[in-house]
Parts: sequence; structure tokens; C-alpha cells
Amino acid sequence: MTLPPGRLTGVIPPVCTPLTPAGAVDTRSLTRLVDHLAGAGVDGLFVLGSSSEAAYLTDHQRRLVVETVTRHVAGALPVLAGAIDMTTPRVLAHAETALAAGADAVVATAPFYARTHPVEIARHFQLIAKHTGAPLLAYDLPSSVHSKLEADLVLGLAADGTLAGLKDSSGDQATLRSVAIGAPDGFSVLTGSELLVDTALQFGAHGVVPGLGNVDPHGYVRIVRHAAAGEWDLARAEQERLLALFAVVDAAPPERMGRGSAAIGAFKAALRLLGVIDHATTAEPQVPLSADEEARVAELLRAAGLHPA
Amino acid sequence: MTLPPGRLTGVIPPVCTPLTPAGAVDTRSLTRLVDHLAGAGVDGLFVLGSSSEAAYLTDHQRRLVVETVTRHVAGALPVLAGAIDMTTPRVLAHAETALAAGADAVVATAPFYARTHPVEIARHFQLIAKHTGAPLLAYDLPSSVHSKLEADLVLGLAADGTLAGLKDSSGDQATLRSVAIGAPDGFSVLTGSELLVDTALQFGAHGVVPGLGNVDPHGYVRIVRHAAAGEWDLARAEQERLLALFAVVDAAPPERMGRGSAAIGAFKAALRLLGVIDHATTAEPQVPLSADEEARVAELLRAAGLHPA
Amino acid sequence: MTLPPGRLTGVIPPVCTPLTPAGAVDTRSLTRLVDHLAGAGVDGLFVLGSSSEAAYLTDHQRRLVVETVTRHVAGALPVLAGAIDMTTPRVLAHAETALAAGADAVVATAPFYARTHPVEIARHFQLIAKHTGAPLLAYDLPSSVHSKLEADLVLGLAADGTLAGLKDSSGDQATLRSVAIGAPDGFSVLTGSELLVDTALQFGAHGVVPGLGNVDPHGYVRIVRHAAAGEWDLARAEQERLLALFAVVDAAPPERMGRGSAAIGAFKAALRLLGVIDHATTAEPQVPLSADEEARVAELLRAAGLHPA
Amino acid sequence: MTLPPGRLTGVIPPVCTPLTPAGAVDTRSLTRLVDHLAGAGVDGLFVLGSSSEAAYLTDHQRRLVVETVTRHVAGALPVLAGAIDMTTPRVLAHAETALAAGADAVVATAPFYARTHPVEIARHFQLIAKHTGAPLLAYDLPSSVHSKLEADLVLGLAADGTLAGLKDSSGDQATLRSVAIGAPDGFSVLTGSELLVDTALQFGAHGVVPGLGNVDPHGYVRIVRHAAAGEWDLARAEQERLLALFAVVDAAPPERMGRGSAAIGAFKAALRLLGVIDHATTAEPQVPLSADEEARVAELLRAAGLHPA
Repeated sequence: MTLPPGRLTGVIPPVCTPLTPAGAVDTRSLTRLVDHLAGAGVDGLFVLGSSSEAAYLTDHQRRLVVETVTRHVAGALPVLAGAIDMTTPRVLAHAETALAAGADAVVATAPFYARTHPVEIARHFQLIAKHTGAPLLAYDLPSSVHSKLEADLVLGLAADGTLAGLKDSSGDQATLRSVAIGAPDGFSVLTGSELLVDTALQFGAHGVVPGLGNVDPHGYVRIVRHAAAGEWDLARAEQERLLALFAVVDAAPPERMGRGSAAIGAFKAALRLLGVIDHATTAEPQVPLSADEEARVAELLRAAGLHPA
Repeated sequence: MTLPPGRLTGVIPPVCTPLTPAGAVDTRSLTRLVDHLAGAGVDGLFVLGSSSEAAYLTDHQRRLVVETVTRHVAGALPVLAGAIDMTTPRVLAHAETALAAGADAVVATAPFYARTHPVEIARHFQLIAKHTGAPLLAYDLPSSVHSKLEADLVLGLAADGTLAGLKDSSGDQATLRSVAIGAPDGFSVLTGSELLVDTALQFGAHGVVPGLGNVDPHGYVRIVRHAAAGEWDLARAEQERLLALFAVVDAAPPERMGRGSAAIGAFKAALRLLGVIDHATTAEPQVPLSADEEARVAELLRAAGLHPA
Repeated sequence: MTLPPGRLTGVIPPVCTPLTPAGAVDTRSLTRLVDHLAGAGVDGLFVLGSSSEAAYLTDHQRRLVVETVTRHVAGALPVLAGAIDMTTPRVLAHAETALAAGADAVVATAPFYARTHPVEIARHFQLIAKHTGAPLLAYDLPSSVHSKLEADLVLGLAADGTLAGLKDSSGDQATLRSVAIGAPDGFSVLTGSELLVDTALQFGAHGVVPGLGNVDPHGYVRIVRHAAAGEWDLARAEQERLLALFAVVDAAPPERMGRGSAAIGAFKAALRLLGVIDHATTAEPQVPLSADEEARVAELLRAAGLHPA
Repeated sequence: MTLPPGRLTGVIPPVCTPLTPAGAVDTRSLTRLVDHLAGAGVDGLFVLGSSSEAAYLTDHQRRLVVETVTRHVAGALPVLAGAIDMTTPRVLAHAETALAAGADAVVATAPFYARTHPVEIARHFQLIAKHTGAPLLAYDLPSSVHSKLEADLVLGLAADGTLAGLKDSSGDQATLRSVAIGAPDGFSVLTGSELLVDTALQFGAHGVVPGLGNVDPHGYVRIVRHAAAGEWDLARAEQERLLALFAVVDAAPPERMGRGSAAIGAFKAALRLLGVIDHATTAEPQVPLSADEEARVAELLRAAGLHPA
């Protein structure tokens, strides 16, 4: 499929990438995860994002993920693909592969590793848009790329047709709100926050890309529906249930592993406990969760009304 | 060739990657640059580092660079190759390609983009060393990867045989000195500083990897020779001449472009002015130097006693 | 007065400190500003915060500000006073002076300048609370003090009675929401955001401390009233009007001055244009706004429906 | 005394501030510490710096420290005094008090807490120099004030007569070297590093302000003398002995306390063990060293050839 007419809206989870114990992409678990999400009523899928461990996947694995998901959904849902790499030439290579493998849109960050500049960030997105000819979303992720996409830059690239949307994982709600207010028709403003979805929808965001949405997609679908109906108290109650569940990302303490490993490890442990994927394996060199830490994940799932095995 | 017995010492420039105006690797200019460096008496070559624009080169271009250089030097100098990527699986892929293309050793940073942890950094280097079986140098570059390799971590990985050396571009001379004092036999401590080579050699570093060494390799070779002879005043005078030349990296002001673009653009402009390479082109999305900025580079070359066209 | 029973709620502006052209505290303008705020129906006043230029005021000026404001309001509104300094002994000295001058509560940040630690941050607040015996609010301001008050730390100090509230200017809405959900009875959760007041109230914050509230207190009072009535669409419309007005802080560009100077300079220019204070002078070494920049402030005031002279 | 003719050179330790168990300034221990330093042949004293816990001392304590030291040395050594505060008006108040109490020169950082700008930093130093009329040294301490004094800014303020010197604790040796090369006659370039004193002197720094110099002033005096004699190998050996001793700052681990507390606590523990001061007390809210951590300090003192009780 191509992107839907109008803008992307609703719940578009960043799809985890299940791995076998040997570190290969577990395509059977991946398609089960896609079914789990689609069955909950999500509006699209985002593969090869940070929650997908895109930073850890080889080029071969990245292509396999896109192919597996696009074939499986067969046009029933739009599939956005991350093209996560340091600079324009390398991002272009990933973008072309993903589009050839069936992705409907590309998601790219500002350049990283290289010390960059706003002029270079703008040029980066313009070149990607021009060379791929596909819809392009900017991915604002300062904790990974160490530069912030400012509202003026995003809105300028929206106005000139470079960007089709913004996936904001910066935590900076004030800037996100400014972009939402200034966004032209057709431009999608998506928040990557797990914890502020109701409020982001209230101030004008169009959709959500929550990592925790792998584990509990129904919850995020409900928030979006409550928000659409103006039922803000119900949206808030659902968000607060999910906020409590989000404590899974702290099941492993910061002394033991990086915060990325703790979050992705917890999402995968939860998916395994819920029977969606076969293994909670994360890619090297991430530290895996211990049995005690997985038990804490199970406890939080139960407290949120989910039913781990 | 394989690495020399004992440790790497002396001047090992991070070799710039000349590009054609269309952005392809200019292999003829690259071999001329290698001749320029070898002719000045350098002790090794480091390809695919930050000054080589490794972050901007596609996988194909990276392999072409290693092949071109290793074939050209044909064992006359050790060739170290950067394997610059975000995490272990991706670094391994680059390392294997570089070694297959003839590199003698691999240089890798801590994981980046992903939020990491000292335990994961150690595991990252251990897995790379184990899987490649080749000499591995750690590349400490906090300005790019946003974590610092602490002395204890480096010395632990030196002691257990994981690391063959450290390429330090952190600017933290105190930590570098601690590593130099604690380094076991055979472990190479290399500074990436352009401006503190004499003092780093004085406190025990074994070699230098200066980006400016592309432009004036003779100068750095002289510092190493003066230092070996205990002629610290001569080493200092040579270092001060090169410090003045290093102002080329500020020929383009910070309002105009990123500091990486300014530095690499200046090195390439200097190499073109000196007749070593054909084009000063830098990779996208970097902003190129203006004619005025190139004129400033030429002026600084002349002031340093070099002879631009 | 002492603090009201229950918790602090509503609009509690951080009161600007008008200065004479010679840099003295302009007490006549200060009392007019207090009248301007009280007349709009605010629920309290916060003096000696960052928007008050507390960092720039001498000890004598700080005491004069507290005395001037507490005498003028004479118990009609609670007055919170910042005790902004680097460490416990120095904060205690400021807190004691402010309380002696009539303040009802103390607001303090984590230690700064000194490199600190969560255990030391907790001990800092515990010692202040114990020694002053007055209500203490923690001021979370990572952009100034370079450490973040995490939800667990704040909630622990709420539970043991150390803290009476949190004034959050971190921009981290997710942490603020966690604190709001976990806050015990009587604990006040106040957001320092100018742009996310409606959403902060929606997820459970109790009040707001907006610097822009100096300029347009009526607007913030309206948001709080709409929120209390569940009129979220009206609250949003009012917030969007104020978001547009907030562009005054960018009237002076980042090349010309620090962002603090630009914001405080703009608030003071606006207050002068509105006839509330006599001079827009800011303290040294801040760069003042130019005439053109003040004209831009006037333009934005008019666009927001206010009436500059 | 006033400052010596010419520039400040040699060893100028940042004098620790001994405290009684109740937290008062222990003036008897302070004068014994001054005798310990003067007896070792230091060239000046720096009071109220970071190692002096200036950030923790009340205004009264700060004045008492300056008075105690200036009366005790009675002109035998120049006394520099830190005027550590957030902005110009507050720094001026401290500077005037210190000068009235007998200090010979003032040491000030860039503004902090407030978000600042190079233009404002320059104006800050210019106003301090103008209003005090005393010699002013800039204190570059990015780890505390979160901005870096760039070489151009320092050299510009040296050239216009604003600054009499630089006390560099940034760890950035390359910038320090640039300042040393560009410094006009009479301008003092002092390094705050404990670990790179020989190399800083080699590249042109004029003096050193080492916190560890409280504990082992003889060692730093020897480095300076070896350097003056061109005996670089002896200077290096002495520096390496002190580098090993500097491990006292890691006697307390980072999980237990801030790194500032660990360093100052270790210096004070060492001074108590050596019989120079009566108590190792540090100011609130710093965590004190445990008995085991003090034992580790004693062990390192013995290994360095010192003789703890």
C-alpha cells in the first residue's frame, strides 16, 4: 500500500524485532507480533526504529524485517521504516533498501556521530526526500543523536514539502505543541512518548508511536478513541494504567545495564510472557534481564490487567 | 603485512578520503595522498577514521578505501581500519570486510546512538576481539559517541588481551597519561591530538594519529624524532608551528557549518592547494568551504612554510 | 499570612524584579506589578525565582524584594521566596532572611556549582526543612543547576514530610506526571511551563508558575478556571493565545545575548510597554533588548490582544 | 603585599578550608595549613577556590578565611581570593569584601546558573575589573559553571587589560596551550591540573594551582624547580609519584557521594592524617569519608612516601 490519503493518525507502534537465542531475526515471532498489533486495531506499523533495535541489526537483518512485515500485512496497514544511520549517503542506502522491500515511508534522524549544524540537518532531510521520492518523517531523538530538531527547522521543512511528518521522542512537549499548531495540512505530528499520549492528542498531535504499545496495543488504541470522542477523563485513566505498566523499563536497575537495554529487554520479556514471541533475546552487547527482573515484569503485567503465562 | 612486532609507535595519520565532485571515492588522489604520507616517513596509516569521513562513506566506499590503500602500500606500512558503527553486530560486519580487504588491525569506538553502559562497552570490545581474531584498538571519541572510555576500563581490556591499543581523541590528557603509565607491554597508546603531541610523547604515549598530519606529515615525523632524541625544545618549536597551522580548522566560522565539516573541509582544501589531491569535495550533507575560506587556508599554509599552488 | 490550609493551587507567578536604570530595585514599580498580578486574580506570588533575576540580586536587594512584597500584600496572598544559592549553608542564610522578611514558604534548588549526588541532594533538602521549620518547595531546574530531580527522590521527600511541593521547570512532563500521580495529600505540584499549563492541569498538576504570567496574568487565571470547569477546549484556546505571545522571548536572537537575558528582557519590556513598570532595565551583565527588539515585543502584545502604550 | 612585579609563577595551592566538627572555620588549623604550604616553598596562596569549599562557605566564613590567611602571611606571599558567585553584582560584593580583607587579587568564573553568552561573559569580567581596580584572574571551570572560556575570549581580555591571568581547570590542555602561546607580557597562565603540571610547564604555563598541593606541596615545588632547570625526566618522575597519590580522590566510590565530596574529603583526611589540620570535616550536604575510605587514603600517603600518623 501507499500511505493513506491525508495524514497518518492513531497508534503506530515501533515494532520490536524478535530474535532467536543465536541472534537471528525470528520471523515467525515477528509475524505473530504484527498480528498481535493489527488485531488490537493499530493504524500503522513503524519498523526499524529504536525500539526495534535498528541500531543493532545488520543490513541483512534490516531488510529481512521490512520484507517480513510488508509481506505479512500485505497492504492492510501502512508500514514506516527507519533508515537509521550517521549521514546522508548511508541513510540513503538504507532508505532505498527499505522502500524496495515494500515500506511505504521512511523515518530518519538528524546526522549523528559527525558534529552537525542546522544547515546540514536541513540539507540532509532535503537530499533524502529528493533522492527517495518517498514520504519522509523526521525522527527527533536527542538522547541518541545529540541534537534537537527545533520547531522552526521542522516547520520550514514541512512547508517546503520535504517532510511528511515528525516522530518526536525528544520529551520536549512544548516544542511538539508548537509544531502541532504550525503544521500544514497533511503533515503528521506523532509523539513517541508512552506517558503523555492523552495530553499530546489534546494539544493537537495526530498520532502516537509508543514502544510500550508492543506490549499493550489495546490500551493505546483506547486512548486514541477516548480522545477522539472528547472523553478526556477516560483517556487519562487509561493513560495512568499504562504509566504504571511502564515501570517495566525499570525492572533492571541502572547499575546493571544501559537504560535502552532495560527498556527493550522488558518489552521483549513482556511479549514472551504474554505468549506473543518465543524469546526475549536482545542483541549484543546488551545485558539481558535476570530471572528476578523478568518476574518483576510479570508482576507489573498482572497489575495492569494483562495475563502473562 | 601484519602489525609490526612490539607495539605501534610514531606517526599514523588518519588518512583523508578524497572524493570526486560527484561524491565517489577518488582512488587516484587517495594513492597520491598515501604516497605523500609514506614519503614523509610516517609509521602506519589509519583509514576509515573520523578524519576519513568514515561516517559518510557507504559500505561499498569503505571497502574500496581499504582495498585501495592496502594494495598500494603492499605491506610497506601497517594499515589500521576503522569499523565505525553503532553496535557490535554492525561493527563486526565492517571489521570483517576491512580485514578481508587487507587491513592489519581494527579500530572501534564504544557503542553509540544506543544508550550504553560500561559493562556493555567492555562486552562490545570483547566480542569484536573474539570474533575477528585481529588486533583491536579502542577509539575514545566522546564528542562523537557521547561516552568516555575510562582508564580502568581500558586498562582492564588491555590486561585481558582484548585491546592492542588505544586511539585517544577525547582531549582528556590526564586519563591518557594514566593509561600510558598503566599500559602493559605491547599495548599502544596513541593520541589523536594535533596540538599536544610533544607533551603526550613526553609523558609516555607511543604514537600520534593527527588529522593535520594529512597536510603536514613531515612536521609530525619531526616531533617524534626530536622527542626520541630528548630534544624537547625542538619538539616544542615544531609543535608550535603546527599549532599555528591548525587554525585552518577555523577558516570557516561556526555560524556557517558544523565543526567537523570545517576541519575536514580545511584539510582537503589544503591537500588540494598543495597538489596532493584533485578535489576538496566533502561528503553530503557537509557544507563546503567558500573561496574566501579556502584563501584563508592557503594563507595559513604559507605562514607555516608550506607551498600551496 | 501562612500558607493556606491544604495545598497551593492556581496561578503563582514568579514576580519580575523591576530595576532602576542604575540597577537598584525599583520598589514602586514592584508594588505596581504586584497589584497588576493580584488584580488579575492570581493565587500566590513567587519572589526571587529565576524570572525574578534572583541570581543577579545582591543579598540586600533580595531582602528588599521580600520585604516590599510581603508588606504590600499584607497577608492577602501567600508569598513564596526563592533561596537560590550553591549549597546548604548558603541556602540556609537566604532562607532565614526571607522568612524573617515575611515570606510564607521557601523554594530551593538542588546544590549546584559543586558536583553533587542524589544522596547529597536529599540531605540538602532535609537540612533546609529541618533548620527553617518552614514549608519547603523543591525547584527542579536542570538548565541552571545541571542535575534533575527524579520522581523517586521527590516523592520520597514528599512522603517523609521534607517537601511541601515541587516547582518543576525541567520541561520533563513525564516525570512531572509521575510526581502528580504519586503526590501525597497536601503536596503541591506546580509547573513552571508557560506553554503546557492546560495539559499539566489535566494530568493532575495543582498550579502553575509561569514567567509570562507577569505580562498576562489574566490569561493564566482563565486557563485555571476553564480547567476547573472541565472546559478543556476553552483552556486550550487560551493556552494557544499565550503560546503565540510567548514568542516575545525570541525577539532578541541567540547571536546577540543569552536566552535568559532575552526572556527576562522581553518580559520587562512588555511590562514597561503595558505601563506596569517604569524601566525595562535588566541586571548586569545581561545584554539589553534593542529598540527593534522592543518593537517586536509590542507587536506580539498587540497580536495577543493586549494594549501596549 | 600587592602582587609581585611581573607575573604570578610557580606553585599557588588552592588552600583547603579546615572546619570544626560543628562546621565553623577552624582558623588554628587554617594557619597551620598555611605554614605547611609556605614551609614547602610555595609561591602564593589561592583561598576561596573550589578546593576551599568556597561554594559551601557563608559570607561571614569567606571573609574570616581571607582575613585569617592574609594576616598570617603578612605579605610574605601573594594571596589570591576567589569571588565565586552567579553573576556580576554578587561577584562584585564578594570581591570587595575579599580585597578589604587583604587579598591581593580576585579570581572569578564566568556567570553560572543563569544561561549566559560570550558577550555577557566578557562584560562580566570587564565590569569586575573596572569596579574593583584589582588584578583579576579568570577561572575556567566548565564542570562547575557549564561554559568554557575560549582562547579568543581570554586573549582578548588579556590584551585589553581586563585580565591579569587565567586559572584553568577545564582539562582542555590544547586551549590552555593556545592561551600560553598568545599571552601578553605579565599575563599569568596557571593550570589547575594535578596530573599534567610538568607538561603544562613545558608548553609554556607559568604556574600551577593543584588541589593535591595541599597534601604534598613539596612535590609540586620540586616539579617546578626541575622544569626550570630543564630536567624533564626528573619532573616527570615526580609528577608520576603525585599521579599515583592522586588516587586518594577515588578512595570513596561514585555510588556513595559526589566526586567533589570525594576529592575534598580525601584531601582533608590526608591533611588530618599528616597532622596538619585537626578535623577532616567537610561542609553540608557533602557525604563524609568512611573509616575504610580514610584507611585507603593513609595507604596511598605511605605509598607516596608521606608519613601519616
